[in-house]
Amino acid sequence: MFMNSRALRIEWGDCDPAGIVFYPRYFAMFDTSTTALFERALGATKVQFLKTYDFAGYPMVDTRARFVSPTRFGDDVVIETRVTELKRSSFSVQHLLMKGDTLAVEAFETRVWVGRDPTDPDKIKSQPIPQGVIARLNGAD
Amino acid sequence: MFMNSRALRIEWGDCDPAGIVFYPRYFAMFDTSTTALFERALGATKVQFLKTYDFAGYPMVDTRARFVSPTRFGDDVVIETRVTELKRSSFSVQHLLMKGDTLAVEAFETRVWVGRDPTDPDKIKSQPIPQGVIARLNGAD
Amino acid sequence: MFMNSRALRIEWGDCDPAGIVFYPRYFAMFDTSTTALFERALGATKVQFLKTYDFAGYPMVDTRARFVSPTRFGDDVVIETRVTELKRSSFSVQHLLMKGDTLAVEAFETRVWVGRDPTDPDKIKSQPIPQGVIARLNGAD
Amino acid sequence: MFMNSRALRIEWGDCDPAGIVFYPRYFAMFDTSTTALFERALGATKVQFLKTYDFAGYPMVDTRARFVSPTRFGDDVVIETRVTELKRSSFSVQHLLMKGDTLAVEAFETRVWVGRDPTDPDKIKSQPIPQGVIARLNGAD
Repeated sequence: MFMNSRALRIEWGDCDPAGIVFYPRYFAMFDTSTTALFERALGATKVQFLKTYDFAGYPMVDTRARFVSPTRFGDDVVIETRVTELKRSSFSVQHLLMKGDTLAVEAFETRVWVGRDPTDPDKIKSQPIPQGVIARLNGAD
Repeated sequence: MFMNSRALRIEWGDCDPAGIVFYPRYFAMFDTSTTALFERALGATKVQFLKTYDFAGYPMVDTRARFVSPTRFGDDVVIETRVTELKRSSFSVQHLLMKGDTLAVEAFETRVWVGRDPTDPDKIKSQPIPQGVIARLNGAD
Repeated sequence: MFMNSRALRIEWGDCDPAGIVFYPRYFAMFDTSTTALFERALGATKVQFLKTYDFAGYPMVDTRARFVSPTRFGDDVVIETRVTELKRSSFSVQHLLMKGDTLAVEAFETRVWVGRDPTDPDKIKSQPIPQGVIARLNGAD
Repeated sequence: MFMNSRALRIEWGDCDPAGIVFYPRYFAMFDTSTTALFERALGATKVQFLKTYDFAGYPMVDTRARFVSPTRFGDDVVIETRVTELKRSSFSVQHLLMKGDTLAVEAFETRVWVGRDPTDPDKIKSQPIPQGVIARLNGAD
């Protein structure tokens, strides 16, 4: 299935008084990586594909991360992101954050495809992932 | 084992364009809850107990969260935090984020007790959790 | 004019590798303080008063902060927030972040009252602050 | 004096329920831009130049930002950063965040060069900016 890779620099403001990344920041990096994967698979920015497919996003249902090796500000890292499972209205993704050849963080996530609830626009409700999206995510990168 | 509970308000800046909490923010809330548990168990702020026990912190090794029900800015929530396992140099914690009687998020975490590496002060290294700390965390709240 | 005060603890995740607050975090604290002031003046949460007055928020137009004295994780601070100027569709606020009797940060902000642009719901447009809101903000606390 | 420019994408997690950047996030972007300017001027990462010049950072003393035009997730922006003043132990920087040809945010900042206080390593103290650093920042980009 589809995968994407992006490089980033760990910044001063990502790090805590111990000098290493404050771990909630990794999840923000992974959220950006999932969006980057969709943007490349669908050939559109998130602003655009939310409109094209008329949905409200892919909120997180379940995520786990194992922190294998710390990273510090100034570190150049690469996040490799791949779709690992596609269901009717949910999908799973794996992220590997690499510092050179060393695995720093491994993360897993399951998200659900949602739209606005027709009975209450303040609420969101799961809906089937469009076939066009599934076809793109099933493709090779 | 020890448990602690704290109330907080979900803020505008915690939420994303879908109007619900941007999930990495939950992990920052849980980190604060783990510190609040230690502060109450040890009767000292983190600044103080880092010095008392001469260690560098308890970085995350493995964490998982299940997002059961969304929360929005203005929501008053309670996070219940309990120690679930105490090992020689690591410990596990569970967080339940409740919105009234509804479970919104359930999270698990395993952290390691670390000090500065004597051979390289830029690095951190696991060390045994002091007996005094274990005694306090084993106690009732 | 109206003023409000709130106490908070500086958290580990608010601080950078120098051990002091990463300054962008202060602005998030001030944003929460401005909302807390409105919530107390209007007697409703932000979720509620956005609906009551049918507007889209009060985005920042201009803000300045002077960082007089650093704060560190574990510090208990108080933010005093007061409305300093009320115009037709904008208002100004001052925040004083105090650590005991010591001023740590002084901040100023000017925000504009906005609604959805009727010609393009993706855009926002300034609109007059409702008289009921002005009356409450003009009142004593 | 020295200037630097960097491109970035506004991310979903940078934005609030109004769909625009939560303004404290801009300050984190500007902090990264100031570091990027130093890294290019000094030809070293922040981790490296903190050691080379044996100092503890350049905490913010005073910053101001004017928000001229909103930006949203998916927007590609450029931040132009230039040193505008160099004093004995402080310096000023200007940031222009551009969305195409449109100015979105203009920010000013004054920072101080600090080291660890020799009488109390938990505290920081201003010290003269090294001549080598001044020479590089005075240079053209």
